[in-house]
Amino acid sequence: MSDGASGGLSRRGLLGLAGAGVAGLGLGVGGDRAVIAVAASATAPSPATDVYPFYQEHQAGILTPAQDRLHFAAFDVSAGTTRAGLIELLQDWTVAAAAMAAGRDIGDFGAVSGPYDAPPEDTGEALDLPASGLTITFGFGPSLFEDADGVDRFGIRARRPDELTELPHFPGDMLEPGRSGGDLCIQACADDPQVAVHAIRNLSRIAFGRAVIRWSQLGFGRTSSTSTSQATPRNLFGFKDGTSNIKAEEPGAADAHVWVGAGGGPAWLAGGSYLVARRIRMTIETWDRSILREQEAVFGRDKGEGAPLSGGTEFTAPDFAITGRGDLPLIGAAAHVRLAHPTRNAGIRMLRRGYNFVDGTDALGRLDAGLFFISFQSTPENFTAVQLNLARHDALNEYIRHVGSALFAVPPGAARGSYVGAALFA
Amino acid sequence: MSDGASGGLSRRGLLGLAGAGVAGLGLGVGGDRAVIAVAASATAPSPATDVYPFYQEHQAGILTPAQDRLHFAAFDVSAGTTRAGLIELLQDWTVAAAAMAAGRDIGDFGAVSGPYDAPPEDTGEALDLPASGLTITFGFGPSLFEDADGVDRFGIRARRPDELTELPHFPGDMLEPGRSGGDLCIQACADDPQVAVHAIRNLSRIAFGRAVIRWSQLGFGRTSSTSTSQATPRNLFGFKDGTSNIKAEEPGAADAHVWVGAGGGPAWLAGGSYLVARRIRMTIETWDRSILREQEAVFGRDKGEGAPLSGGTEFTAPDFAITGRGDLPLIGAAAHVRLAHPTRNAGIRMLRRGYNFVDGTDALGRLDAGLFFISFQSTPENFTAVQLNLARHDALNEYIRHVGSALFAVPPGAARGSYVGAALFA
Repeated sequence: MSDGASGGLSRRGLLGLAGAGVAGLGLGVGGDRAVIAVAASATAPSPATDVYPFYQEHQAGILTPAQDRLHFAAFDVSAGTTRAGLIELLQDWTVAAAAMAAGRDIGDFGAVSGPYDAPPEDTGEALDLPASGLTITFGFGPSLFEDADGVDRFGIRARRPDELTELPHFPGDMLEPGRSGGDLCIQACADDPQVAVHAIRNLSRIAFGRAVIRWSQLGFGRTSSTSTSQATPRNLFGFKDGTSNIKAEEPGAADAHVWVGAGGGPAWLAGGSYLVARRIRMTIETWDRSILREQEAVFGRDKGEGAPLSGGTEFTAPDFAITGRGDLPLIGAAAHVRLAHPTRNAGIRMLRRGYNFVDGTDALGRLDAGLFFISFQSTPENFTAVQLNLARHDALNEYIRHVGSALFAVPPGAARGSYVGAALFA
Repeated sequence: MSDGASGGLSRRGLLGLAGAGVAGLGLGVGGDRAVIAVAASATAPSPATDVYPFYQEHQAGILTPAQDRLHFAAFDVSAGTTRAGLIELLQDWTVAAAAMAAGRDIGDFGAVSGPYDAPPEDTGEALDLPASGLTITFGFGPSLFEDADGVDRFGIRARRPDELTELPHFPGDMLEPGRSGGDLCIQACADDPQVAVHAIRNLSRIAFGRAVIRWSQLGFGRTSSTSTSQATPRNLFGFKDGTSNIKAEEPGAADAHVWVGAGGGPAWLAGGSYLVARRIRMTIETWDRSILREQEAVFGRDKGEGAPLSGGTEFTAPDFAITGRGDLPLIGAAAHVRLAHPTRNAGIRMLRRGYNFVDGTDALGRLDAGLFFISFQSTPENFTAVQLNLARHDALNEYIRHVGSALFAVPPGAARGSYVGAALFA
């Protein structure tokens, strides 16, 4: 997997190595030309110098150990963009994403080496920063295949998987159109927020005239672990949640629950996945006035250790049958851990990869804060089944509000010399 | 300075140490009781385990080596809050801030040790995290001394320094009231955003019924260095700016330019400073379409190294006299580095401590991004003089818009057993 050793090199150092003798302007499918990728163990935590290869069987940013920071953007393809224009955009995005994942700036000339009479190809704010574990993950929304007016803009309607439709309305949903949907999405994760922001900004810039950001979200702290080497972080309710998340080290789990199988959908999506994003606003102030017993009852976990209320430690399996005083179950019927648990959902598991967010303060002085939920699953029906269960019964609903929602099909990883989603247009 | 060794201890570990035998509920002026502070060198970079003492001559978060992340909040005191109520709030804030700066959760019982029939005293999302270099800095706005109706709510109008009035309107200002002003401010800086967010959230919660957040701002990346041990970071224009910032290691610089001297204002403010905050939106998309030559001319610096266009390297003093082709100065008359330079501003210097921000996307799909500028100076007149110069002439104005503004008097550090701002109410 390793084309060269670049662990500690900054973008400029790499530019120096790669730039000599390179001619030509503009972005294209560069393939092997200047991509320097270093294989990184999927099980190691990712320090700032980690580099995850972009060209892989599956897209990076799914099983990759969850990085600390997120910038997520949904795009709408601009009116007038043709099928050829969309393909060209995906090609340009692929080349740029591979360069940034390798810790390089984008384009042939990058940010600072001129020509002086043209805008720099790269915006430059990540020039001195290492790759910082950056992964860039692309997805296709239902509206890419058929827009709101039923128009098949790009000649791909016939290739839309049956499952790729808007998610149903769930009880309690208070979705804002400006935070929902989108023709395309890009998830940029890194251990340095400046690197994630730089990635979305430059990909948005590349899209100029072809696609425009519909909404975007920064996440400052991961709320999930996707590797056994990572500690379970806390959400803004102060709890460890998602302890039983799918981990990269679990043999067979990703094949069973995350990747679309060869027979599980259209061929172009085999080895891909479905990404669900939900902006979940937490009513922090109400939660903070609830008593500790109520908080623990809502999650069904002890707040300190994250152990299920049925006993044990964080990773002890919850016992939903065990009862306490008055023969009431220690983990209540409406407890989040019970309702979300695979054993209560026909064995359904998802790979969760969400982030805490705070977007300042609303007009009443309350923090606009919560969880930007992201999950990957082999079919969106798995998310829908679990979410219906939660939306109807979860005690947590008193303290949260789903305000944004989107679904994307995530194609498999691109082969070197090709581009993300190529099989869809083949 | 060191009361105990706590470098690698989590909040829970510290809670275990400090909590045994502590009785009583509620917040009060705890002074020495459970504050564990470890002196940290002002010149060292701050890894996550750094702990900066809260009780110091000057408040922390000014000369402290600039941490990576920011959460800043401006508060308005609620109607009906008395002078005694305001003092009590400052006392409660002081105790809580000292605990959090030491890496502990707040209150006598904290987040998870009960009582189970009361809301936890600490919200808990930073439980497993180290102090992460957290500093919490408090300030008093002009309206605290006299509100918009001319009312002296807290009996302190007579003690208002003459300089503590709203900043003047600068040419080009497009200020939004919802992002400007405030009776009080809290600047929380840390190397982990979850720690900074936790601090503002818990201080806001303590203020319930007494003060409410007027506006708040997250910053994801520092844009200034306040120590010679730190590299100059890049702003979202991709440039190194503020190279000549005041550094903690410069003998006499802070006394001359940052701290209010004994004879320079009211006695209660001696050893304090003035904090100016400006939310500066960058019109990223316009900038990104400008040519490299224009970008470098605007700043008066080379984009790659940050060297002045008159030659040398990043830390070479700019030569404003030297000319090139056509006898034009290499650093133009409207270049930012020229207009902001102390030699062009009667020797005025400020300690800058700003942060990059991205708050998602606006209705046109443009990043709502820019610089949250923070400066500390011995008198706000210094800021005003420089900003008038910049607002009138700076070539950068074509690409930025000041949309938020606030000024606060920052009292000196609290003595152990006392509280921040005590001298104002003595």
